[in-house]
Amino acid sequence: MNAPPASAPVDPVRLDKLAQVAVHVGLQLQKGQDLVMTAPIAALPLARLITKHAYMAGAGLVSTFYADEEATLARYRHAPDESFDRATDWLYEGMAKAYANGAARLAIAGDNPMLLSGEDPAKVARANKANSKAYKPALEKIANFDINWNIVSYPNPSWAKQVFPNDAEDVAVEKLANAIFAASRVDCDDPVGAWQAHNAGLHRRSAWLNGQRFAALHFKGPGTDLTVGLADGHEWHGGASVAKNGVTCNPNIPTEEVFTTPHALRVEGHVASTKPLSHLGTLIDDIRVRFEGGRIVEAHASRGEAVLNKVLDTDEGARRLGEVALVPHSSPISASGLLFYNTLFDENAACHIALGQCYSKCFLDGASLTPEQIKAQGGNSSLIHIDWMIGSGQIDIDGVAADGGRVPVMRAGEWA
Amino acid sequence: MNAPPASAPVDPVRLDKLAQVAVHVGLQLQKGQDLVMTAPIAALPLARLITKHAYMAGAGLVSTFYADEEATLARYRHAPDESFDRATDWLYEGMAKAYANGAARLAIAGDNPMLLSGEDPAKVARANKANSKAYKPALEKIANFDINWNIVSYPNPSWAKQVFPNDAEDVAVEKLANAIFAASRVDCDDPVGAWQAHNAGLHRRSAWLNGQRFAALHFKGPGTDLTVGLADGHEWHGGASVAKNGVTCNPNIPTEEVFTTPHALRVEGHVASTKPLSHLGTLIDDIRVRFEGGRIVEAHASRGEAVLNKVLDTDEGARRLGEVALVPHSSPISASGLLFYNTLFDENAACHIALGQCYSKCFLDGASLTPEQIKAQGGNSSLIHIDWMIGSGQIDIDGVAADGGRVPVMRAGEWA
Ligand SMILES: [Zn+2]
Ligand SMILES: [Zn+2]
Ligand SMILES: [Zn+2]
Ligand SMILES: [Zn+2]
Repeated sequence: MNAPPASAPVDPVRLDKLAQVAVHVGLQLQKGQDLVMTAPIAALPLARLITKHAYMAGAGLVSTFYADEEATLARYRHAPDESFDRATDWLYEGMAKAYANGAARLAIAGDNPMLLSGEDPAKVARANKANSKAYKPALEKIANFDINWNIVSYPNPSWAKQVFPNDAEDVAVEKLANAIFAASRVDCDDPVGAWQAHNAGLHRRSAWLNGQRFAALHFKGPGTDLTVGLADGHEWHGGASVAKNGVTCNPNIPTEEVFTTPHALRVEGHVASTKPLSHLGTLIDDIRVRFEGGRIVEAHASRGEAVLNKVLDTDEGARRLGEVALVPHSSPISASGLLFYNTLFDENAACHIALGQCYSKCFLDGASLTPEQIKAQGGNSSLIHIDWMIGSGQIDIDGVAADGGRVPVMRAGEWA
Repeated sequence: MNAPPASAPVDPVRLDKLAQVAVHVGLQLQKGQDLVMTAPIAALPLARLITKHAYMAGAGLVSTFYADEEATLARYRHAPDESFDRATDWLYEGMAKAYANGAARLAIAGDNPMLLSGEDPAKVARANKANSKAYKPALEKIANFDINWNIVSYPNPSWAKQVFPNDAEDVAVEKLANAIFAASRVDCDDPVGAWQAHNAGLHRRSAWLNGQRFAALHFKGPGTDLTVGLADGHEWHGGASVAKNGVTCNPNIPTEEVFTTPHALRVEGHVASTKPLSHLGTLIDDIRVRFEGGRIVEAHASRGEAVLNKVLDTDEGARRLGEVALVPHSSPISASGLLFYNTLFDENAACHIALGQCYSKCFLDGASLTPEQIKAQGGNSSLIHIDWMIGSGQIDIDGVAADGGRVPVMRAGEWA
């Protein structure tokens, strides 16, 4: 052991179960398959357990890339201005190549959601744009589901202190760890079995929505009157899903959503966010936007409005939707009452929409569609994919058929 | 701060000076230049300081790749057999591309020298060969001095416990930290000035040797009677050196050696190692080899002989010399009396030779020579470059002129 211990201990038994869920449920890592992992340095204990279980599952090579929040801050505080239009193109190109050669992808989430809140929003936006552009070839292979991939979370102290600001660090870490373990379904004797049952429930919901073939969804609630047209030939997904490499995986741990592709040109009305969005270390709160012809023509936020507008200016697709997702208000993560400031958790506590890139798998026969066909059917494309929450206990959703007929989908935030 | 603290504190004042020496003396990092850094996870405190000083010096992007000893062990213990013929080609190709685009390279050394001593030597050799092959395009840019590069050390607990086995971990770390700080010349008020004076001394020695134009060096001592022919048009180097990108840098911190390129076909006789060699976690002790026509035809070791023979079988060049270096027995590192089990330190405590790849800069006008010309002048090529120590207080060295005339170079380990 030459590495430093974590500053607060996390229950090793459930952490080991979480690593097993990541490898066997999240990834279904295949014998001989390589794994590319990214992790915050504080997530070292989880990364080690995942590495062990990945090799035990027959992994070829596990390559882990650690990110250090202090190094990121040092860049913002000391780097010359030109640095903020740069990204490590060569690394992302290499990752894209690894995925093309069959490697799986695992990201450990858990960064401090407020890390960059004190930095210059213009620099944050420039660095993010440069990074998104460099990362695009790799991200496409993930967004297009060419490979099995997974995101799982670790209770980093800096994140825990955001979720539990009134607790001492070790107490906050323990509370966040408990919340992660519960939401990730590793609190039971048979986490893999629990995930099978949960996946079956999400598959039933998707099948019902796919049978309805709605032309649009209509969201109505406080500050929201929004019609989200669905893409032609859209397909609902939720839970475990088959990647193009034939592997059935659960990309998000936890996951409570069923989701599909909206039509990039057919979104009308206005919508208000119901939870703050943490984007690259900045909190964007009380988002209110208006859509015309699928495009955001007006955008406000009570906090982080400058960052929001920079995000929307990333490219043409950044002002249009790439995902719409349904989550009941009674989902376990929502029921926890916690605000995680982390999209992986908060998006699974509420219905949400995403700005930017669509998922090609959310089309019937999506794997065989060309980018041109996806565009023709209404699929959006962009450097970004940013989810934000529009669901609550006060939202009603109708499915709107092509002939204008309406079917209740959710009432007061619950499946109708 | 979301990262765990080091398990033993290292004096932050001298650590900061070491980071400054790495950036300003080791690399002479240029404004706008990118930096690719590798580090053991335990070296996080030094990596952070180097990142800060690199950005303050105007670095474009600093990209750090952390290695975790536990992940390496997990691979040896759990990975399928096929894993050991694999390497992350895509990552090394990317690094080579980064160097081709002008990035500088910094490695923080300090791994546990005994990490792999309990693992299967055949697996160690296979993994190392796959890695060397994948790394070659990147290593060539370093070995050919295309870019400014530097290696500097951090007192990792696992290394410290090898050097000071009878001390508690925190005491061992403090002692190793003190030894590193002293050898790296950061114990004084003006480390940058101390390095300028030290470089001037090494330059005077190289200039004298270059003036002599010896055809060979003859080493005589206990177990050693070795004639090392020098390459045609060889050039001696030591201390700061100008890379092909025009930057004057100190590749090794510490450094006490002057060194040049032997002739790959003109080494005759036998030689015994004077310190153990730590190679990829295995200790190789009491090496005794015999050369004929530049080639090792017989090799023994009292410990690690199997690994030594695997190393020699890497490729044809692995049995021939790529470097010969002179270090007085009274050098500060030698005077410390410590065995570091780390080549960066131990090679600077004693005269040494290296198996494998030569440095093209150790030729007159080396930058303009083609690989074919280098070979024709006697330069060796190989996937490996492994230094081992043959100097001691009992060694005499003569310079042998082309006409057979002899000039004393060292007597009883000191400059004659
Ligand atoms: Zn979603
Ligand atoms: Zn999404
Ligand atoms: Zn040397
Ligand atoms: Zn060497």
